[in-house]
Amino acid sequence: MSDTTCRRLTPVPLTQVSIESAFWAPRLRTNRDVTLPIEYQQCKYTGRIDAWKLDWTPESGTEEPHIFWDSDIAKWIEAVGYAVAIERDPELEALVDGVVDLMEAAQQPDGYLNIHFTAVEPELRWSNLRDWHELYCAGHLMEGAVAYYEGTGKRKLLDVLCRYADYIDTVFGPGDDQLPGYPGHEEIELGLVKLYRATGNERYLNLAKFFVDERGQQPHYFDIEAQRRGKALPAHYGDNHDYNQSHLPVREQETAEGHAVRAMYLYSGMADVAGETGDPTLLAACETLWDNVTKKRMYLIGGIGSAPHGERFSVDYDLPNDDGYLETCAAIGLVFWAQRMLQYDGDSRYADVMERALYNGCLSGISLSGDRFFYGNPLEVDLDARRGQPQHYRGTSMAPVRQEWFGCACCPPNIARLLASVGSYVYSTSDDALYVHLFIAGETKVEIGGQSVSVEQVTEYPWQGHVKLVVTPETAATFALALRKPDWCRVAELRINGKTVEPDTMRKGYAMVTREWQPGDVVHWMMEMPIERMRANPAVRHDAGRVALQRGPLVYCLEELDNGPNMADLILPADAPLTVRWRGDLLGGVMVVEGDMLRRDSLAWEGALYQMDPSPLVVAPFTAISYYAGANRELGNMIVWVREG
Amino acid sequence: MSDTTCRRLTPVPLTQVSIESAFWAPRLRTNRDVTLPIEYQQCKYTGRIDAWKLDWTPESGTEEPHIFWDSDIAKWIEAVGYAVAIERDPELEALVDGVVDLMEAAQQPDGYLNIHFTAVEPELRWSNLRDWHELYCAGHLMEGAVAYYEGTGKRKLLDVLCRYADYIDTVFGPGDDQLPGYPGHEEIELGLVKLYRATGNERYLNLAKFFVDERGQQPHYFDIEAQRRGKALPAHYGDNHDYNQSHLPVREQETAEGHAVRAMYLYSGMADVAGETGDPTLLAACETLWDNVTKKRMYLIGGIGSAPHGERFSVDYDLPNDDGYLETCAAIGLVFWAQRMLQYDGDSRYADVMERALYNGCLSGISLSGDRFFYGNPLEVDLDARRGQPQHYRGTSMAPVRQEWFGCACCPPNIARLLASVGSYVYSTSDDALYVHLFIAGETKVEIGGQSVSVEQVTEYPWQGHVKLVVTPETAATFALALRKPDWCRVAELRINGKTVEPDTMRKGYAMVTREWQPGDVVHWMMEMPIERMRANPAVRHDAGRVALQRGPLVYCLEELDNGPNMADLILPADAPLTVRWRGDLLGGVMVVEGDMLRRDSLAWEGALYQMDPSPLVVAPFTAISYYAGANRELGNMIVWVREG
Repeated sequence: MSDTTCRRLTPVPLTQVSIESAFWAPRLRTNRDVTLPIEYQQCKYTGRIDAWKLDWTPESGTEEPHIFWDSDIAKWIEAVGYAVAIERDPELEALVDGVVDLMEAAQQPDGYLNIHFTAVEPELRWSNLRDWHELYCAGHLMEGAVAYYEGTGKRKLLDVLCRYADYIDTVFGPGDDQLPGYPGHEEIELGLVKLYRATGNERYLNLAKFFVDERGQQPHYFDIEAQRRGKALPAHYGDNHDYNQSHLPVREQETAEGHAVRAMYLYSGMADVAGETGDPTLLAACETLWDNVTKKRMYLIGGIGSAPHGERFSVDYDLPNDDGYLETCAAIGLVFWAQRMLQYDGDSRYADVMERALYNGCLSGISLSGDRFFYGNPLEVDLDARRGQPQHYRGTSMAPVRQEWFGCACCPPNIARLLASVGSYVYSTSDDALYVHLFIAGETKVEIGGQSVSVEQVTEYPWQGHVKLVVTPETAATFALALRKPDWCRVAELRINGKTVEPDTMRKGYAMVTREWQPGDVVHWMMEMPIERMRANPAVRHDAGRVALQRGPLVYCLEELDNGPNMADLILPADAPLTVRWRGDLLGGVMVVEGDMLRRDSLAWEGALYQMDPSPLVVAPFTAISYYAGANRELGNMIVWVREG
Repeated sequence: MSDTTCRRLTPVPLTQVSIESAFWAPRLRTNRDVTLPIEYQQCKYTGRIDAWKLDWTPESGTEEPHIFWDSDIAKWIEAVGYAVAIERDPELEALVDGVVDLMEAAQQPDGYLNIHFTAVEPELRWSNLRDWHELYCAGHLMEGAVAYYEGTGKRKLLDVLCRYADYIDTVFGPGDDQLPGYPGHEEIELGLVKLYRATGNERYLNLAKFFVDERGQQPHYFDIEAQRRGKALPAHYGDNHDYNQSHLPVREQETAEGHAVRAMYLYSGMADVAGETGDPTLLAACETLWDNVTKKRMYLIGGIGSAPHGERFSVDYDLPNDDGYLETCAAIGLVFWAQRMLQYDGDSRYADVMERALYNGCLSGISLSGDRFFYGNPLEVDLDARRGQPQHYRGTSMAPVRQEWFGCACCPPNIARLLASVGSYVYSTSDDALYVHLFIAGETKVEIGGQSVSVEQVTEYPWQGHVKLVVTPETAATFALALRKPDWCRVAELRINGKTVEPDTMRKGYAMVTREWQPGDVVHWMMEMPIERMRANPAVRHDAGRVALQRGPLVYCLEELDNGPNMADLILPADAPLTVRWRGDLLGGVMVVEGDMLRRDSLAWEGALYQMDPSPLVVAPFTAISYYAGANRELGNMIVWVREG
């Protein structure tokens, strides 16, 4: 359990962080110029926009509005909100404003706002919280409304969502005339806390707390609800309450179960409520769950939810590579949760996971071109293995080729909102410190202890580990600079104004330097960034005898295009030298890892399928690229974990 | 292509081979005393016997007779036929005779004999050869009838099947008033050839040849048939003709495709027809297909058909261990095909595969107790991986626990008929040679070039590689003794009457010794039988970096019960000494392989999921048992391919 129950840190908001990183700035530009327009077009083309007119009928000849359509456009609005907070964009805003007008018109007199359960099945409103997505959609709409309000100052959608939240607050609660229910797919908890922060209305926080507290209590709401329906409707993934994390009251949950995205949103919501209420029992539950996820159920790329069936967590250490699911949204959710946990006491283990997921399992979810997406992000692609499986077992969500869109299109707008808001993950402040969590070139301006401080960060991270910080308080000021020493870094050197110094202390993974800072003080934080061979716990049977290459925060992979077929037969000698080389021409610029592996000489086999003697080995030069950059060229096999020998 | 188009060898029949092997004799006894009675009871209990009364109605309250029920009891009758050929058994015969009476009564006036399409859907007779199993069931009934006739001299069932075959011969054929069809599930080809051999009626051979020749011709019969049905009926595994090996005329097929059992029965039928007709093109196709199966698509245990979906062949070298299907029936079918190919010219490559499948992938299909069965025989059991998968993806056919019976119960009576007839796989004769294919202690009496010769085989095979043969011609006689030198054997020594001699020649894997044999001549064939580390072709990505232990014909496995959890982390040092030890107390008596492996020290990990440094290794003593003996104790994980380092 943490030694504090209140958040000591506050993230430096998006608007106070400029990004000039050669790695990140082009991504944000692509996100704004390519991804956001395309996602609008996809929503338009698939009917997700016009559905807000609520005029769908079975005779329309168009697809029936799905129960989660609302959330796709909501996440897109949220992403636009972040993008325009940095730089206004009349064209994007015009698109949003048009949708907002539809939404406002779609709001029912009582405040209700949902496409499907207004236009298609109005009689079923709130009748199946377990399997349907009304509260989930509401939560995303709230997040979108807050982001768009904060990015533009436009209140219309925020007001709509406040009315909706007010209405929801009358429907759900402990009163005799209220439903003691909670969402089957968590999300509204986050939306309500954001709405509370944006409006100061405690009603929203209390409702979020109600949803968190009520979850998994007995008698079980979802059972009562199912009985009320006469179980006439098919259950989604059965009656297993762990699928939606309602198998126990949340404070009694010790392992991450069920649908991974739902779990991440729940845990983020728990962290939010704990942060606002100072509830130590809720925080303790988060910490227990954090340990389970990150020490037993997380892939090296920060992906989670290994089981395709149910997009869910499997058992401890069950992290198959080719069969792994690792939904993009789940890695994004892990970033959300990590950032929330990080604010409590500035423990770098949260930032380490946040960075790992961000640079690997999240970034892999979108193509370099910004217009193609992965739903699943496995650590191995084995096209032959897929040939031997039934088509229905792997849909487009597990396709090895990035898709333009998905029927269940949660991931594309989710990665867009994460990218648009990446600036908000870089720094935090406390009363007396500036925390540097991520190393992203750019500038920030913060207040610390009433002092205004500008900081310029210069770095080629993630390609190099040297970070230069120019610290410029308005006038000389005393505060701590907290520099994260990442989990991948064995040795880091600190220089201030050219002189090597020791940090005052290492505190929870951060090098703390407290001094009276003068305008223009220069700090060098020089993290050695060799290529590391990562190894998985012996209980992860899929990675036994294997290593994964990692340099800095970036996990590497080998693609067939660079390394030829049958990469399973490659073996990396334990003493093989590994080198890095900048390839500006490749994949938008990437530092490749090169070296020599060995492979068996197929020719020596003369067609035999089995033989008794070992084979001669031949040298096989290899090129590894960063995992996020994979699947941006021709279709082919890919591996992350290579055999070591 | 073979250098002969006629069979040079003839198997020595069951009735001329006694089995006294300490390995095999108890298995045959269990088969007769336990398996055959239990299988009858299962057929009775599940309605497969009474269904022959043809009185089922939807109101019966019993299960609707399935389209393949006929074949289950037919294979059981065949097994009884072989068992009583060796030693009559009034009780078993009484059970058969009772069923035969029902069958005789069930035969329609025109000769038709099928439960489902007489009692349930008579109007659909012959309307869907692709998906239904009428001709398949007919074939099994023919095989059963011939075996029972040859084992007992009782003709009733043989006569019934001749009438049925006569009728089928009027329905199918090239005539204008005939159907140019062939079975979706092959089998009748084998039955017809056996019926031809038992009766001498060439009509049956010609019909078998018709079915083989017609397969895959254009216009495609199954398409025409589907059109005739208006495609109203759901296709079984779609319209993929390769599923049932009708994608090409059989002589143009070069890779083993589709449902593995169907493929084995087709290829066996092709070999039969080629053998009887001397058709070199048919034999050439068999040889091409043989190479594809055994050099690219066969597991080390002689199992085939790696893909669970469709119980079918996947692509070359796609041989997953945990996900592998390896239906017991497919390995049995491979034995059938191998034995047929072996008779052409006595090439030991066929006997090698026959022995490999028999001792491993077939024997594993039945428990040591004789009353539990495997449908699938994977080379790895990973219970955790199964937890992460949908239930519907793995039914009882892939359960890691042997089952008492299956809804699709093809495997139990199939293994029973193979075990009951194992004596027929041991020897062949040619005009001037006695071939010893398998090393099974017992006696045989054969005719070679008109001379009667008795041979006593004394050996503890498969546990020891020493074989003693006492050759006793009635009078001194000149002929060749052909002793197989198995593919697993590097060094074998030949002694005659105590003196080491060189074979006259090695011919296609057989040590040939031609001499004038005197009564009581003693031959020692001493095959060195060390523990071998088998390696798979580099293209088999699932086995890269791994070895499988094999001693003699037996492949070994490691069970969790003997070796603790997480066997994936075990590593067998390249120079680790391996020892064998007889354990008479274990699993009915088994030679275990023991030694020391290494595994990482989990304690050194302190709960970390990933780390950068290698772990210390600790010694992990291991015990391996023969694969066929696995899954006879507590449920647990199992591996065959262990990492070598």
